[in-house]
Amino acid sequence: MNETPLVMRHIGQLVTMNGGATFSEAFAVINNAALVVEGGNIVWMGPDEELPANVEGVELDVLGALVTPGLVDAHTHLIYAGDRSYEVRLRAQGKSYMEILAAGGGILSTVRNTRQASDERLLQETRRRLSRALLAGTTTVEVKSGYDLTADGEIRLLKLIRQLGQEGPWRIVPTALAAHAVPPEFSGRSQDFLHYLEAEYLPHVSDLARVVDIFCEPGVFSVAESRAYLRAAQRQGLSIKLHVDELADGGGGSLAAELGADSADHCAFTSQEAFQAMAHRGVTAVILPGTARYLNHGHMADARAMIEAGGWLAIGSDGNPGSSPTDSLSALMPWAASWLRMTPEEVWTAVTRGGARALKEESRGRLAPGLPADLVVWDADHYNFPVYYYGSPLVKEVYVSGRRVAVHHSEVI
Amino acid sequence: MNETPLVMRHIGQLVTMNGGATFSEAFAVINNAALVVEGGNIVWMGPDEELPANVEGVELDVLGALVTPGLVDAHTHLIYAGDRSYEVRLRAQGKSYMEILAAGGGILSTVRNTRQASDERLLQETRRRLSRALLAGTTTVEVKSGYDLTADGEIRLLKLIRQLGQEGPWRIVPTALAAHAVPPEFSGRSQDFLHYLEAEYLPHVSDLARVVDIFCEPGVFSVAESRAYLRAAQRQGLSIKLHVDELADGGGGSLAAELGADSADHCAFTSQEAFQAMAHRGVTAVILPGTARYLNHGHMADARAMIEAGGWLAIGSDGNPGSSPTDSLSALMPWAASWLRMTPEEVWTAVTRGGARALKEESRGRLAPGLPADLVVWDADHYNFPVYYYGSPLVKEVYVSGRRVAVHHSEVI
Ligand SMILES: [Zn+2]
Ligand SMILES: [Zn+2]
Repeated sequence: MNETPLVMRHIGQLVTMNGGATFSEAFAVINNAALVVEGGNIVWMGPDEELPANVEGVELDVLGALVTPGLVDAHTHLIYAGDRSYEVRLRAQGKSYMEILAAGGGILSTVRNTRQASDERLLQETRRRLSRALLAGTTTVEVKSGYDLTADGEIRLLKLIRQLGQEGPWRIVPTALAAHAVPPEFSGRSQDFLHYLEAEYLPHVSDLARVVDIFCEPGVFSVAESRAYLRAAQRQGLSIKLHVDELADGGGGSLAAELGADSADHCAFTSQEAFQAMAHRGVTAVILPGTARYLNHGHMADARAMIEAGGWLAIGSDGNPGSSPTDSLSALMPWAASWLRMTPEEVWTAVTRGGARALKEESRGRLAPGLPADLVVWDADHYNFPVYYYGSPLVKEVYVSGRRVAVHHSEVI
Repeated sequence: MNETPLVMRHIGQLVTMNGGATFSEAFAVINNAALVVEGGNIVWMGPDEELPANVEGVELDVLGALVTPGLVDAHTHLIYAGDRSYEVRLRAQGKSYMEILAAGGGILSTVRNTRQASDERLLQETRRRLSRALLAGTTTVEVKSGYDLTADGEIRLLKLIRQLGQEGPWRIVPTALAAHAVPPEFSGRSQDFLHYLEAEYLPHVSDLARVVDIFCEPGVFSVAESRAYLRAAQRQGLSIKLHVDELADGGGGSLAAELGADSADHCAFTSQEAFQAMAHRGVTAVILPGTARYLNHGHMADARAMIEAGGWLAIGSDGNPGSSPTDSLSALMPWAASWLRMTPEEVWTAVTRGGARALKEESRGRLAPGLPADLVVWDADHYNFPVYYYGSPLVKEVYVSGRRVAVHHSEVI
């Protein structure tokens, strides 16, 4: 933590996200702003000309730049070994995700690599991805386990996630996703696998993660199987979330509402009725637009239905080696605006406070006195720009708890 | 130019693009390679262990990194003033490109801004975009005029493009696109506008650009109008290219083949027959996948039809303030692979040698003794990776004619 206060001045626009309590009212911005950080937290923010005269500290002039909360990526699978770049060729040849999976590729090849990888290798590869995420403006990132699929191996992954979180400077929110796929050892016996996890895995999760996740999708884990497993998790005092309706409307969105999940993620085929039920029950919809387009199946979540239902929306990167090989949430913002028909204010809300709400990390994703100073300084002077201009990175500097933790010095010589 | 030879060693993979003479045969790679540059040109390349013992120079160990030719972006509109980030909101409200255009927004608002902008402002804004393009690995970039739409103003833009090219370090290939849209002064009189350009503009182009372009699309310039205008350009000794079939199959692809254009660009709705005619006539298809997805109209060019017809393909960024606000061609590579169903080798060919062929810059986009050392050093060890991993920038260093001209120093502290 910084001992000396930091005084950030001449902020062209300070997006605070400190508006109202609903998704549609959360966005707020102060033009020509200043911000004072002490002990890692914001102690003052407001118009630059109202900065109290008695404030002392290291002054940083950001020369009219846009400053926003650090992004909150509410859905990633960043801990795994190896990559699956050879699948680009298979997809060009017309092979579907399910065909690649059936041929022993896909997720099961990452499971083989991850099981064989040493702790050191997993830490090193994941650190590299978390560093890139931070450079892209993500200060709080959910990381799911899920590429081992044995009770012991999944606990190992959660411990490694905890270690990476302790290292920082990023804030990591772990999620226990042992029920990510049916492992080869339980092929065709999804229910037996879930019973095994209930007995051997769930009792050991609570020290390492607050939330249990499952891949609820026709052909993987059914709604009935998911309900039983998630209720078992709830009986252990754990919170729950679900992957739902990625490749078909399997009823997962409704199940998330029924069980009171923290979030339902993907929602590519979720119906208007299910979104209404989720909104009513306070379940955040975590939309993953990169995945839908990367796999080229072309089906986008009906984000507007969730917004119109008055619910909360987050946008996640879904960083994973198969269907969304990335670590940058900010790179997706312009595409999300276009593909989900969202306004700039809605996109900013979804990648900051929406993500924080999905993760129950309510002190992140917005800026206010008393909250941690997790900030991004952008190469832009209006908040519209990073939701508009795609391809080139626009993040200049990233702060976590008031400390500068990532910088871009790219230069043309 | 460097006086001292540069010896680049321990290149994990050196993509040379120095294979056969067709699109499908052009890709070539040397594993564990070395490269020697003298006077800006490559003088030797091959396996590292075969590096001649008598070579002297500054040795640079790239530690197993992937090295490729600098990217060639064959289609951009990077000279303009202002941005159109406010259109994100209009699109979220469901307004179509044509509706925004009809309301006086769209391209005509950029025309207003560009006409009013001083030379200095245009140079400054465009330099910033060219710098970002270079940092993204683009060493040769086509820049079209086209946001003034008066004879004098379009000549001014071509002169500014020439000035930016002389400044470097990028290589700029200018294109004369006065026939980009019908200006307000000629509203409803597209043919009169083209006659005006024939008389007042085309005679002054040849000192400033080698190629004339037109936006041949139903509702803008018809096939008959385009044919007459492009033939006039050809009579002036100029080469030609066309924007075709972006929003409908208007027959522009066939016209490009009929007239022997250097390239036909967009081709989102071009038929298999037109691609075959283009391939037969040697017209390169420049595909702009970012534009199709950014506007969310969802129609992708049938790249595989052109490949199967034996033709040449390039992928361009289409960098422009409306339908593809970007300057990064490399950011599009993973999306292009997915959306166009192209293999990694095909994508690399399209962004290097394919682009060079579209621009008749045959010494660029590939690496061989005697050719300029325009190189990108990647944060990757296999050429599959930049075609697979999306979002985060993977370019580490960029060289033009053997000189290091751009570097990324991003760091987590
Ligand atoms: Zn997921
Ligand atoms: Zn264009």
